[in-house]
Amino acid sequence: KMLQRVLCTVLFMGALPSLAEVSQGHISVVLLGATGDLAKKYLWQGLFQLYMDQVSSGHSFTFHGAALTALEPGQRLMFDVLKKLACPPDESPNRCAVLKDQFLKLSQYHQLKTAENYTVLNREIETLLRQEGLKEAGRIFYFSVPPFAYTEIARHINSSCRPPPGAWLRVVLEKPFGHDLESAQQLAAELTSFFKEEEMYRVDHYLGKQAVAHILPFRDQNRQFLDPIWNRHHVERVEIVLKETVDAEGRTSFYEQYGVIRDVLQNHLTEALMFLTMELPANVSRAEEVLQSKLQAFQSLRGLEKNSAVLGQYQAYASQVQEELQKPQDYISTTPTFAGVLIHSDSLRWEGVPFLLTSGKALDERVGYVRVLFKNRAYCTQSETLRDAEHSQCKAKQIIFYIGHGVLNMPAVLVSRNLFRPVMPEGTWREAVGQSDLHIFGQPLSDYYVYSPVKERDAYSVLISNIYHARKDFFITTENLLASWGFWTPLLESISHQPLRLYPGGVENQHLLDFEMVSGEVAFTLAEPVELLNPNRLMPSDYRTIQSKFRQSPLVSAWSEELISHLASDIEKTASRTVAQSGQFHLALSGGSSPVVLFQRLARHHYAFPWKHTHIWLVDERCVPLTDTESNFFSLHNHLLQNVRVPYFNVHPMPVHLNQRLCVEEDAGTELYAKEIMALVANASFDLVLLGVGTDGHTASLFPRSENGLEGAQTVVLTESPVKPHQRMSLSLPLINKARQVFVLVLGKGKHDITTLLSRVGHEPRKWPISGVSPSSGQLVWYVDYEALLG
Amino acid sequence: KMLQRVLCTVLFMGALPSLAEVSQGHISVVLLGATGDLAKKYLWQGLFQLYMDQVSSGHSFTFHGAALTALEPGQRLMFDVLKKLACPPDESPNRCAVLKDQFLKLSQYHQLKTAENYTVLNREIETLLRQEGLKEAGRIFYFSVPPFAYTEIARHINSSCRPPPGAWLRVVLEKPFGHDLESAQQLAAELTSFFKEEEMYRVDHYLGKQAVAHILPFRDQNRQFLDPIWNRHHVERVEIVLKETVDAEGRTSFYEQYGVIRDVLQNHLTEALMFLTMELPANVSRAEEVLQSKLQAFQSLRGLEKNSAVLGQYQAYASQVQEELQKPQDYISTTPTFAGVLIHSDSLRWEGVPFLLTSGKALDERVGYVRVLFKNRAYCTQSETLRDAEHSQCKAKQIIFYIGHGVLNMPAVLVSRNLFRPVMPEGTWREAVGQSDLHIFGQPLSDYYVYSPVKERDAYSVLISNIYHARKDFFITTENLLASWGFWTPLLESISHQPLRLYPGGVENQHLLDFEMVSGEVAFTLAEPVELLNPNRLMPSDYRTIQSKFRQSPLVSAWSEELISHLASDIEKTASRTVAQSGQFHLALSGGSSPVVLFQRLARHHYAFPWKHTHIWLVDERCVPLTDTESNFFSLHNHLLQNVRVPYFNVHPMPVHLNQRLCVEEDAGTELYAKEIMALVANASFDLVLLGVGTDGHTASLFPRSENGLEGAQTVVLTESPVKPHQRMSLSLPLINKARQVFVLVLGKGKHDITTLLSRVGHEPRKWPISGVSPSSGQLVWYVDYEALLG
Repeated sequence: KMLQRVLCTVLFMGALPSLAEVSQGHISVVLLGATGDLAKKYLWQGLFQLYMDQVSSGHSFTFHGAALTALEPGQRLMFDVLKKLACPPDESPNRCAVLKDQFLKLSQYHQLKTAENYTVLNREIETLLRQEGLKEAGRIFYFSVPPFAYTEIARHINSSCRPPPGAWLRVVLEKPFGHDLESAQQLAAELTSFFKEEEMYRVDHYLGKQAVAHILPFRDQNRQFLDPIWNRHHVERVEIVLKETVDAEGRTSFYEQYGVIRDVLQNHLTEALMFLTMELPANVSRAEEVLQSKLQAFQSLRGLEKNSAVLGQYQAYASQVQEELQKPQDYISTTPTFAGVLIHSDSLRWEGVPFLLTSGKALDERVGYVRVLFKNRAYCTQSETLRDAEHSQCKAKQIIFYIGHGVLNMPAVLVSRNLFRPVMPEGTWREAVGQSDLHIFGQPLSDYYVYSPVKERDAYSVLISNIYHARKDFFITTENLLASWGFWTPLLESISHQPLRLYPGGVENQHLLDFEMVSGEVAFTLAEPVELLNPNRLMPSDYRTIQSKFRQSPLVSAWSEELISHLASDIEKTASRTVAQSGQFHLALSGGSSPVVLFQRLARHHYAFPWKHTHIWLVDERCVPLTDTESNFFSLHNHLLQNVRVPYFNVHPMPVHLNQRLCVEEDAGTELYAKEIMALVANASFDLVLLGVGTDGHTASLFPRSENGLEGAQTVVLTESPVKPHQRMSLSLPLINKARQVFVLVLGKGKHDITTLLSRVGHEPRKWPISGVSPSSGQLVWYVDYEALLG
Repeated sequence: KMLQRVLCTVLFMGALPSLAEVSQGHISVVLLGATGDLAKKYLWQGLFQLYMDQVSSGHSFTFHGAALTALEPGQRLMFDVLKKLACPPDESPNRCAVLKDQFLKLSQYHQLKTAENYTVLNREIETLLRQEGLKEAGRIFYFSVPPFAYTEIARHINSSCRPPPGAWLRVVLEKPFGHDLESAQQLAAELTSFFKEEEMYRVDHYLGKQAVAHILPFRDQNRQFLDPIWNRHHVERVEIVLKETVDAEGRTSFYEQYGVIRDVLQNHLTEALMFLTMELPANVSRAEEVLQSKLQAFQSLRGLEKNSAVLGQYQAYASQVQEELQKPQDYISTTPTFAGVLIHSDSLRWEGVPFLLTSGKALDERVGYVRVLFKNRAYCTQSETLRDAEHSQCKAKQIIFYIGHGVLNMPAVLVSRNLFRPVMPEGTWREAVGQSDLHIFGQPLSDYYVYSPVKERDAYSVLISNIYHARKDFFITTENLLASWGFWTPLLESISHQPLRLYPGGVENQHLLDFEMVSGEVAFTLAEPVELLNPNRLMPSDYRTIQSKFRQSPLVSAWSEELISHLASDIEKTASRTVAQSGQFHLALSGGSSPVVLFQRLARHHYAFPWKHTHIWLVDERCVPLTDTESNFFSLHNHLLQNVRVPYFNVHPMPVHLNQRLCVEEDAGTELYAKEIMALVANASFDLVLLGVGTDGHTASLFPRSENGLEGAQTVVLTESPVKPHQRMSLSLPLINKARQVFVLVLGKGKHDITTLLSRVGHEPRKWPISGVSPSSGQLVWYVDYEALLG
């Protein structure tokens, strides 16, 4: 009844098109959670803005606030909010006052709790439209409610509130959209059972930020300048940053479950990353093309590892959690409130370019930006003092999408003057005349072309307008969402027990949260943190490398990282010495996971290694094609060979794949490899053989009670593994024992039992093949980490 | 007689050890060119300094100035110089006055012109020593004479002025040491016929500059800090710079023959480059170890090409040359007075790091420095304004060996404070307190640790002292010299007709000489020069690439260099398009010499080439082991595969070497390769086949009247070549004709006849196999250079 009254009032006014006359049809907007924080702060204002913008569009509107609260108090709460709606500065006060009055009259509160409530709402909308003779254009349901309520509401809308055929339904969803890939998939599956993909508008309000929303149009409109430089040859690094000064106080019940990565990086910063890295579709305004490009860009991202991130927590967080969530005094939260993450894309365009995503609470300033720093390839012959400062080719070249706050305190696009003068859309962006004494990103503001929006708009107004215009490219599709969770979930899992650096908060943080890239990983720059919140307090860190004896042979022991670096150095020393003596170095390497770290170490830290004169042999191989991810050679290739320069002729994978089949006796792969060894390795005596040990005492692919390879004249043998893939090719024990040096690498707690056993048993190769390793005239050295040695 | 008088005077003084008493023996220093510019300016002062330093060393000295001038005037000229010798500021004026007096008395002038003159000099030295009862320690002959006089003087010294057995001979040679590799070899051979290597001290006075001389000791003493960062992963770029304000006026007769590269880059800057790039020997004070490291570093340098350098000439140079050398008004000098050169090392340590060597006359300032700029790998979370400026990890990190002049106006070593506090030798270097408001290399001086020598020493004093101490590591050995010329000569040859940018000189040069690196080459930043001096007026440089038809197929023609770059681009485009479509690109490459240039071009200029997804096949192969230098694969490996990252699995050499024998039918190499093609290449249809043409019309290894491969079902065949090695393996014509694209590359005058012939004949593969290339559904394109096309 109230609605009818409202409509009558509007009709009486006459100045605006009457609802009955309009031809575009009627739109009902239902705001669920109408009295919540987000609604109060942004959504009602956004809806009012929509009304002001579209009142003459030919559409008529009604606005339905809804919540669980009963009618009377709900009504009161809601209208308290509505009365405070602000008129935008660029609107004439008179028009705004009239429109605000109308907006209030078109708005109504509903209690939406039971299925019955939804049916009633639907009936009311239908009745109104019938009475007024209005065609229905569509309905917008805005979910400003906690995620646990989603499914229930979705079910009700789907069953009782769908508009009639011919009219559209748009449901607007607010994050969080899950907690990890699995929960996101589950939530998505539920929603998909109620709504079609095109009906869902998942909000990432960052896509409504003007500077973020302009990344793609900027790339499109400046193709002529960017095409040659928007790639790894020209981009030095990219920083995507959202720093907050506030902390999580009052919100810990939410925050403790999510943390900074889920709260900011997985969604906001990732979307900005995608806008930067995706291949530009031919038409950037076609949502489907943009989506496909974006999904491809996700595909190219290199998987994150534990050391891809540095994590911190502000000091007061723990006590805030203890207080707000009533946790005991000794409760330790492992939720990061700061994260710096290094991301790489393996696309040809971006390979090797570091993308640094950073966000945190309780930092020294509030600011958001996306900064693309270009490589400096110029040499300026003129002395510094004589150069034209603004256009010097030797000054840093950068493009910055300044999201807001910070020293500029407005959204902006900045382009270094020595790059190019950007094309910007007239009417919406204009050149800004800033304070010329301001320094930003290491340079005076005068070094940049600076553009800011003609009209600064709140993200939610932009988004609500985009919902109205059905511009789906400003929202997160299900595929996009799952791609993002698919990317972030492995990191989230691997860091759940990662130590957090505690930081005091604000300007006091000083250099504590600065971090650096080292070999594709990140680490805090200050090595000795003031305080480290480490849930794994057990680790003794003051052990030194132990040198002793194991099974009558030299033993080197240390924590695994130090052990690996020791081993890598020893291998390099052996290689250099051998090459100096004989001109070449024959190295036989084992497969498995332990050597991977060693391979990486060798590739990244041993520049003087004589790779050009090194021959690489395999100790053993699985009977799979060399390009199979299970292949030992494939792993060796990925982690070592790809990164160093071993001549093609010096690489000797085992011939497990001959005549398009795997390890068939008649193909004589073992004989082939044996001949190759005989032909190239003097006396078939390798300079160095690197072995591992299995929990069952196997080494190479020589398993307990193996029929082949433990003794006899055969040098290369086919064997059977108890685990898949069963078929293996392996060097034999007698061949291994001809080597000039044998290093055995044993890593990890899982190897403690076999290590203990081996320290006691004698020479019993049939039971424990590794016990048969005993070079006849060479040297054997054990490299065993503390975990394997001490358990 | 004069000398005797001198000695008596000294003996009377008594304050100093008498010559007869000393046990270390006597040293005779002979300065040839005693009245020349260098002698006047530096050498006599250096010898006086030596005398002051070593007067109490136990050695006695005599100094013999020599020149072509007759005795009387020569004597007068020389003593005019000697009288003006300065006392160093750290020497007490009294002591210096006494020593100067003695020095003058120990010095004598000789006319050295004829063989007789040398014999007399020798006799005089012998007589003196006998009379005084002195043992001879050694003789130093300092050649401060033009290089054309070297051989003659060397012959005389060798035949009549060698010291007696037991005493050493040291001959000191001043540059230029040749004009290119050949002349340097000739000069070296001549000198070697007179002197032993250890007797020769070739001066590069840069090695006497304190900052340059300290590069190696600095690297040695700071190993702990530098070891992890002195490599391609941390160094962004290196600049080695010597800028002069003076021009060549008055010296053009010398300069016009040499130019800036021979005058400064080939020697001074190259030596600094070597100190930076060489692997540090275990003992940096052992000359032999240093030399070996240096020679290895030369080995690793990538060959220079025409576009490795930008060249300029100051505007007044031409008229100075015309005037001084009496050249006609329209005489054009092609001598560069400015050069910027980009150098790459292919060592594992430095691969990819740009080394920029720059020098020029008539520039805006006089300064010399070696600057190592490190990559910035840090992200600083704290806002700029709050950072500790001096130690911020986000500030540039650099190490500078400041040779002299410029804003600092002293030799210095600068290390960014955010890098490390360097270890410097106490006593010889001390921390400098500079003007804190000074900006240098983009930063305030306060951002650096600055060290300067306790005692600033002139390069020649240092060098003369090193000659005295027989420190050969401060001099250029023959091997070193020839390695340097070997490196520079190809560039010097290729740029002899390169256009030069004219520059006005001084501060007027503005941005005219700024240059940039693009794809491994350099180019001036300002694309449109104000004026370009191009001596190659003959070359039709305004030819455009011709596109036309040849044998009914598209023809691309140009001068060979442009043709190759066109072809390389076309191959890259095809590769990128094919990978985008099908995920992989199958490329079959021919052997021979023409493709080598193409391979180099692809390796060095096509960074976006999708190598990771490219399969490399061979069109043909010689029946030799793959590691034989005759092998097509070996050449492909050397010029291409070694420099790009094609996965091991994607490289498919022809199996010409099976079971340790070459191309034996029973080993079924051809079937093996055919099967591999069938297994990996869809429809056995290569994406691109690159062919060449022989003067006899052969292509691939399909020769006229070949029994195999011209027709029939066989896809891979064994063939016979009329030239050695006779046995070949080749793809067959039918297989080639299945390709989606075939490019035929024809280069050089030698191919003109066959090209002309082919333009006329039809399809006659038995006579001219190339005429049978006619892809059934693919495209054929001819790339023929002007020389092959037009003769």
